[in-house]
Amino acid sequence: MPDATTPVAALKAAIRRFAAARHWDPYHTPKNLVMALASEVGELCDVFRWMTPDESAAAPADPALREAIADELADVANIVFLLSEHTGIDLSDAVEAKLKKNAIKYPPPA
Amino acid sequence: MPDATTPVAALKAAIRRFAAARHWDPYHTPKNLVMALASEVGELCDVFRWMTPDESAAAPADPALREAIADELADVANIVFLLSEHTGIDLSDAVEAKLKKNAIKYPPPA
Amino acid sequence: MPDATTPVAALKAAIRRFAAARHWDPYHTPKNLVMALASEVGELCDVFRWMTPDESAAAPADPALREAIADELADVANIVFLLSEHTGIDLSDAVEAKLKKNAIKYPPPA
Amino acid sequence: MPDATTPVAALKAAIRRFAAARHWDPYHTPKNLVMALASEVGELCDVFRWMTPDESAAAPADPALREAIADELADVANIVFLLSEHTGIDLSDAVEAKLKKNAIKYPPPA
Repeated sequence: MPDATTPVAALKAAIRRFAAARHWDPYHTPKNLVMALASEVGELCDVFRWMTPDESAAAPADPALREAIADELADVANIVFLLSEHTGIDLSDAVEAKLKKNAIKYPPPA
Repeated sequence: MPDATTPVAALKAAIRRFAAARHWDPYHTPKNLVMALASEVGELCDVFRWMTPDESAAAPADPALREAIADELADVANIVFLLSEHTGIDLSDAVEAKLKKNAIKYPPPA
Repeated sequence: MPDATTPVAALKAAIRRFAAARHWDPYHTPKNLVMALASEVGELCDVFRWMTPDESAAAPADPALREAIADELADVANIVFLLSEHTGIDLSDAVEAKLKKNAIKYPPPA
Repeated sequence: MPDATTPVAALKAAIRRFAAARHWDPYHTPKNLVMALASEVGELCDVFRWMTPDESAAAPADPALREAIADELADVANIVFLLSEHTGIDLSDAVEAKLKKNAIKYPPPA
């Protein structure tokens, strides 16, 4: 199911089930999950660190790089979803609220 | 609209429109976005760095901390959505594919 | 005292004294310090995220940017020194040992 | 040579020589190095993410963990030294200046 038809809650439920089946919940405090997030983002940084910005824009057209990026992006997304689950913060609501704040902080050009 | 009824694509479209209205697209190469992601995750680390794991689990019950966490989590999520947009990698597909790989790497206990 | 004449141990002692005078030692477990490190590195990422690599190379010539980079680099270095203090891992020994390993992993071109 | 007798400049020179022998200098723009730093800090986060703070304090007493931590800490330190080299920012001066600023921001308790 692609992004067009997948509710955010479905992805959250999928990763939550995956973790619960492995009895990982006791490790998933917000502090630990944020550390895990920094670790997974570090993996993405590893993929891109020596590329120029142009090379990074071309990277998704290379099948091996595309898979590496997709794998690491999924890892990052899964931790974001687990953080939403374990803090009880609805991601869609949080994004909507933050975009409203940012619209004031960064007004669009006239 | 909460996670239960918001398709991932709707959040991706919202942040994409926000950035386009500010002419930020030229800055949003995958390399730059990954650096931005590390920066935003650093903000989350800042919130939790001196807490114990138990304190971090209790943090979302404190209104001021809850808002701080929601704000930073939204910032992280928005960069993840922009990375999905600018790499053309469908997040739901990537998560599904990665969970399948991880199910082999980490089989559930018998 | 510049890098040419400052022993690593002098910088470690300076930040350790600073933290001890503020009774911060109980917070400085390796886990917390590593999270603090991710937070401080996030600040450096914030400075450079939208720059091109060329702009980043020119940045230290701009006085305001130079001070911002120096401040964040010092924050990162101080956490590295605190990690060395609180783990009892000698930084110079660790660097020497790692360079020997890396010399095998990445042999210089013939 | 341990931290007690190793000038910061000696470590900087060692990693600079290592990189130069491999012709890595063209990749070592500040932007790329900061991304590399986020990647290496991610490796440290990976070591500690599921530990309690107490477990993290005990980790350096375990030989295998101690070596893993020393390896990753050395990687982080080496990027910090390369950043100092490639920005021309003296690390000892930057640390001294930042501690003076922080002493005002965080005065010691009376």
